[in-house]
Amino acid sequence: MESEQLFNRKGYYRNSYNSIASASSDEELLDGAGVVMDFHTSEDDNLLDGDATSPGSNYVMSNGGGVMSSTTHLLDFLEEPIPGVGTYDDFHTIDWVREKCKDRERHRKINAKKKESAWEFTKSLYDAWSGWLVVTLTGLASGALAGLIDIAADWLNDIKEGVCLNAMWFNHEQCCWGSNETTFAERDKCPQWKSWAGLILGQEEGPGSYIMNYFMYIYWALSFAFLAVLLVKVFAPYACGSGIPEIKTILSGFIIRGYLGKWTLLIKTVTLVLAVASGLSLGKEGPLVHVACCCGNIFSYLFPKYSKNEAKKREVLSAASAAGVSVAFGAPIGGVLFSLEEVSYYFPLKTLWRSFFAALVAAFVLRSINPFGNSRLVLFYVEYHTPWYLFELIPFILLGVFGGLWGAFFIKANIAWCRRRKSTRFGKYPILEVIFVAAITAVVAFPNPYTRQNTSELIKELFTDCGPLESSQLCQYRSQMNGSKAFVDASPNKPAGPGVYAAIWQLCLALIFKIIMTIFTFGLKVPAGLFIPSMAIGAIAGRIVGIAVEQLAYYHHDWLVFREWCEVGTDCITPGLYAMVGAAACLGGVTRMTVSLVVIVFELTGGLEYIVPLMAAVMTSKWVGDAFGREGIYESHIRLNGYPFLDAKEEFTHTTLAREVMRPRRSDPPLAVLTQDDLTVEELQGIINETSYNGFPVIVSKESQRLVGFALRRDITIAIENARRKQEGILLTSRVYFTQHAPTLPADSPRPLKLRSILDMSPFTVTDHTPMEIVVDIFRKLGLRQCLVTHNGRLLGIITKKDILRHMAQMANQDPDNIMFN
Amino acid sequence: MESEQLFNRKGYYRNSYNSIASASSDEELLDGAGVVMDFHTSEDDNLLDGDATSPGSNYVMSNGGGVMSSTTHLLDFLEEPIPGVGTYDDFHTIDWVREKCKDRERHRKINAKKKESAWEFTKSLYDAWSGWLVVTLTGLASGALAGLIDIAADWLNDIKEGVCLNAMWFNHEQCCWGSNETTFAERDKCPQWKSWAGLILGQEEGPGSYIMNYFMYIYWALSFAFLAVLLVKVFAPYACGSGIPEIKTILSGFIIRGYLGKWTLLIKTVTLVLAVASGLSLGKEGPLVHVACCCGNIFSYLFPKYSKNEAKKREVLSAASAAGVSVAFGAPIGGVLFSLEEVSYYFPLKTLWRSFFAALVAAFVLRSINPFGNSRLVLFYVEYHTPWYLFELIPFILLGVFGGLWGAFFIKANIAWCRRRKSTRFGKYPILEVIFVAAITAVVAFPNPYTRQNTSELIKELFTDCGPLESSQLCQYRSQMNGSKAFVDASPNKPAGPGVYAAIWQLCLALIFKIIMTIFTFGLKVPAGLFIPSMAIGAIAGRIVGIAVEQLAYYHHDWLVFREWCEVGTDCITPGLYAMVGAAACLGGVTRMTVSLVVIVFELTGGLEYIVPLMAAVMTSKWVGDAFGREGIYESHIRLNGYPFLDAKEEFTHTTLAREVMRPRRSDPPLAVLTQDDLTVEELQGIINETSYNGFPVIVSKESQRLVGFALRRDITIAIENARRKQEGILLTSRVYFTQHAPTLPADSPRPLKLRSILDMSPFTVTDHTPMEIVVDIFRKLGLRQCLVTHNGRLLGIITKKDILRHMAQMANQDPDNIMFN
Repeated sequence: MESEQLFNRKGYYRNSYNSIASASSDEELLDGAGVVMDFHTSEDDNLLDGDATSPGSNYVMSNGGGVMSSTTHLLDFLEEPIPGVGTYDDFHTIDWVREKCKDRERHRKINAKKKESAWEFTKSLYDAWSGWLVVTLTGLASGALAGLIDIAADWLNDIKEGVCLNAMWFNHEQCCWGSNETTFAERDKCPQWKSWAGLILGQEEGPGSYIMNYFMYIYWALSFAFLAVLLVKVFAPYACGSGIPEIKTILSGFIIRGYLGKWTLLIKTVTLVLAVASGLSLGKEGPLVHVACCCGNIFSYLFPKYSKNEAKKREVLSAASAAGVSVAFGAPIGGVLFSLEEVSYYFPLKTLWRSFFAALVAAFVLRSINPFGNSRLVLFYVEYHTPWYLFELIPFILLGVFGGLWGAFFIKANIAWCRRRKSTRFGKYPILEVIFVAAITAVVAFPNPYTRQNTSELIKELFTDCGPLESSQLCQYRSQMNGSKAFVDASPNKPAGPGVYAAIWQLCLALIFKIIMTIFTFGLKVPAGLFIPSMAIGAIAGRIVGIAVEQLAYYHHDWLVFREWCEVGTDCITPGLYAMVGAAACLGGVTRMTVSLVVIVFELTGGLEYIVPLMAAVMTSKWVGDAFGREGIYESHIRLNGYPFLDAKEEFTHTTLAREVMRPRRSDPPLAVLTQDDLTVEELQGIINETSYNGFPVIVSKESQRLVGFALRRDITIAIENARRKQEGILLTSRVYFTQHAPTLPADSPRPLKLRSILDMSPFTVTDHTPMEIVVDIFRKLGLRQCLVTHNGRLLGIITKKDILRHMAQMANQDPDNIMFN
Repeated sequence: MESEQLFNRKGYYRNSYNSIASASSDEELLDGAGVVMDFHTSEDDNLLDGDATSPGSNYVMSNGGGVMSSTTHLLDFLEEPIPGVGTYDDFHTIDWVREKCKDRERHRKINAKKKESAWEFTKSLYDAWSGWLVVTLTGLASGALAGLIDIAADWLNDIKEGVCLNAMWFNHEQCCWGSNETTFAERDKCPQWKSWAGLILGQEEGPGSYIMNYFMYIYWALSFAFLAVLLVKVFAPYACGSGIPEIKTILSGFIIRGYLGKWTLLIKTVTLVLAVASGLSLGKEGPLVHVACCCGNIFSYLFPKYSKNEAKKREVLSAASAAGVSVAFGAPIGGVLFSLEEVSYYFPLKTLWRSFFAALVAAFVLRSINPFGNSRLVLFYVEYHTPWYLFELIPFILLGVFGGLWGAFFIKANIAWCRRRKSTRFGKYPILEVIFVAAITAVVAFPNPYTRQNTSELIKELFTDCGPLESSQLCQYRSQMNGSKAFVDASPNKPAGPGVYAAIWQLCLALIFKIIMTIFTFGLKVPAGLFIPSMAIGAIAGRIVGIAVEQLAYYHHDWLVFREWCEVGTDCITPGLYAMVGAAACLGGVTRMTVSLVVIVFELTGGLEYIVPLMAAVMTSKWVGDAFGREGIYESHIRLNGYPFLDAKEEFTHTTLAREVMRPRRSDPPLAVLTQDDLTVEELQGIINETSYNGFPVIVSKESQRLVGFALRRDITIAIENARRKQEGILLTSRVYFTQHAPTLPADSPRPLKLRSILDMSPFTVTDHTPMEIVVDIFRKLGLRQCLVTHNGRLLGIITKKDILRHMAQMANQDPDNIMFN
């Protein structure tokens, strides 16, 4: 009987394919293929029959490494793939193993067909190249969109202050480029650019025009904010926030339909510009990652390799998020490391390479667009030319402590506020909330020049060192050696002038303002990133500390630390560097990023020398922050929203065993299982309707409890419907069987229904004694949805990803019912 | 009966610990702990008894998130850990899962003790910081050793040519620093530095002194080579080669005792200097990684956290290899990516961060030592100031093709030669071989200035652009606009002078020489890296192409491509950039590195602009190389040496199933299994002696074939010996049992031996229908040693890592018996 069987290997993801195996000339391989379990007294030989293979009977063998193609006769037409089997519902978790198998299967099919015709060969080439194509397209689109957003936000931001008479579409800087009259010092003032007071009242100075400008500033800010929240609310609710928590969840294998769709992309791009221009305390860097991921998702629909495979699609999204950070910070390598460290879940080396490529392409497109007119990718690119000294590590570490404290405080305060918004009536009026916050921001921000200006520009000003050409208030030092020496690069430390002291007070106010407003802004229903506000807070604190150390070194140059390193008249403290270190520390405190953050900031400065201060600050900040709570802002928001996200970074340190986590518990009804050959369609439908589980283990019999496989609810439903539509004679009393051969039935019984093709015959199992740390590791590394628990070969229960998340929440004394989805 | 049982969770790695579990106030957790299998009619209730738990009877509960500490009464003294259980033999594979569990267990113990006393708290702090300490020490040592090697190799290299009269220990450059007489152009010639001819014959010029110098050059080269191979042969055979293939294997979880020991470190450091100085076509970059890993391994012995845990030790080694590349190329970020992409196997994010730190520390130590006197970490650091043009991508891609071809050719030729060395008598005379190769190298190298000099210096010269201060032969262009304009940075393209043409011929000869010698050198019994020779070959080819394009652009500036981009009199082609692109392409062809290579070279140039040419070349080189064979040189050497290395990069694309790979095959004897309670000590020893397997599945009974667990051979042997020594009444006829309770025995039988503590009760299992692609994935991602195969709950067979490697070799039509170890 065995020799009549086909070489039939079927798991549910191997529904139909031409069995292609590279055959070796070694006999052993084929021996291995025909397994005889002679030491194994099987009581269900009928099961094994179908699977035992007979080599050589219907193969066309090509010796020596050729391709072995079997003319797989299909036993019955149900072996054809059933449409819909293997897809996912919204808000469900994908099965990484299954998706990867599907992809390899597809790849094998294409490879097998390749030699048939030139057309198939072209198709296989297209398929092989589609990975590179899709990341190139994503990079191009991300770079272009980032440039567009930069330019548009810049223009809209200047509209708040005035308008260019020559050409409406010029921003302040562009407007004044054409002007010949302006001297270098007054490059900001040119007749073509009119403030609103100048335009409406006809006068630029005086209290009346100040109030007019103030009013127009608030008016525009409110208009932009209102428009942004309206568009988000009406057209694409997913476009709000930074998007990184959701992208992390999606990349970990969760389906949120429409989150990366074209509407989200369009609305997010438009509203991001509006939100940035409205002057709210938010940044465009996080949302740019979302925009890039939308591009990646949309382009992946052009290529069947990616559109039909959720795991492969996530590779594109990983590359896209690298491209997003690349354009957000002008840091391609930092972007790749961000994708690796922060957002990605499954990151094979091939993805690393493609992410790098996407990040580079995006960066070069953005540089070609040159939105800031400085040939750089970001506004706040700086180059320092002075070294740092060892004693400076003390203030740098202090900045790290500040960053960590700020991060911990921000996360706690922001999460508390967001929870309040979710749980009270307050959350029902998102438009009002946005307008309210925007109004307060605008009213408070206008009088202070450091809060009135664009946050990126503020960061640029704080990062930049005072050179002889710098006209900012922060650089109003009292010049002692007037004209005695000309320094181009390094200006010596000088006593601070009144301008600096005034600036410090304004900066302190700006710091408090930014801290408060950022807490209430992140979580509003507009696109809002917090990289820029965090960096601004750190940069302000850093600059203040830097100026303090600088003045200390000037007035107390006889102190031991300064005497050793700082000679009088030399440039030894760089306040701009302190601002940068502070920015990195604060960003690190909020996001708990480490390597990628250091590399991003390193790419901003272009000097390897400053890595040590940065590392010291970022490390301190992370440790201080972790002391108050190990979760970064993104993980906190993921938990707040209840996404089923199994963090790869968090270690599971408890000693529980699999059987303590598995279902059913003691008080639960017994596990819903299917037997392999004695259920009717009606019984099966009954089980499906009575329960809400996503899948059912299939066992040999109720008595033996020995596991055969696992069948998914969705697949069973689809298969039954399909059979009823297409197969005749399937009644409610038809017997359902998962075995290779139909069970022997009474003569008058209706035609049985074979469901073997949807059976996963290789379900993952662990024993009941397996420590949960290993189970969690398996779930993380293999990306499982569920795992069956056995004891001495008998089925005991099931552990799903949700059970694990619930268990982990329980262990951490959190509310386990918070996990909403799945 | 149940309520009398203890809350006893025992896997073989959970031999003895205080059961610490963070208890939640939720009743559900404890419910879950007491599993009742009420739907499950068990036929072996005696088995389940021991495992069913009764919560609450002997716990000290502290409500609300406290620590639950159970006063675990040990049932018998065998529950104590048996010394030796859980360690590994030489040339065995480690079990990652078990090691990680051991570490978490140790961590929990320390955490539990922390609050007992100040001393314990200090110990826990020391433990928490030991990870950072060990990478810091490794970084410091790697940086210092690299500096030492650089300086010593430089000095010894110059000894071949002459000696410093003032101070023997100065190299040529240092010797002439003190000289005031030298002009800039003749900076290499100073009276203090005497060539050997000058010293011995008293004259520096003339054919006699040339021959004298030639002779002394060969003499020193042979002496160094002889000394190097002698030291390696006598003291540390593991010190030969680059070490990277072995480090990759060790990191993937293999034990090679002594490979990273102190002797290897000492001898490798010394002989590396000698080998580099001997003028052989080899580099010090690969061996530096080995040296850094030795440091990491040695320092890890200071910390019990790392010395006693093979998995944790490998985290240190990953960081150490990053530090090694960091000092080899002055590229900390590139080093981390190299560790991630090329050598590491298990690379959690924590390791990423520590690798980065180790790489930075090492780089800064090296920079403080400043071995090259240029404040840079490497000799061949360059900065370009001219952009590149789009049409130049064509020659860059051509260089990529050359690199790929060279890589494929080199791998094939070198492997063929190494195989010949292994299989024939030729390999028995390693000292003679080294002397022979060194002699040929020295004889051929001396007449050509480009091969006579140090390869690093050659690369530096080829990378460097021709400026007005450059005196090299390569820069002897005919100056047309003599004195008309002064260019500092950018010198315009000029027609090549006779010096350039002479240089090109010499370079061509050097190229051929290097290509041939490198093939025969890599694999000699001296420390030998191939980064530098590969880069030199690429740099020579690149420079030649660069000069060719430059001259083409000069003489044919009316061609369309040049007319568009190259105006007459401007500097449009940078031959040095071509050399760098060529070097990257050749290195990429040989090693198949991608991202890390681009980042390493990017860190050498410090300009983001040149990433695109580099990527284009490296990508082309990888594709071309992959077309001839997908393995890089390291993977090829791993396979040549038969190390059990399961490459994470290589995809398993075949459709075989687990049962085709598992043992026993059809012709094999049945699987050697142990039954849980009816073997005697004698029978058990018989099974162990008759077979050579590393472990045995334990089953309920021969009839049911239901799997209970897995016991390792080494553990069983140790446990029996231990029991015979310590426990009285254990005879050969004693019954061995793996269950919780002793089986009921006749009254006169000897005392039974309980071996439950060495039983792994959570062995990994897959079904026989599992596709091998999934099995391979599980092995790779979880780092398994073996996996059991079941069918419908019955044990069928076993798959080990070796089986998988053999199967993969079979599928690739390779000799499956090549896998030597394990």
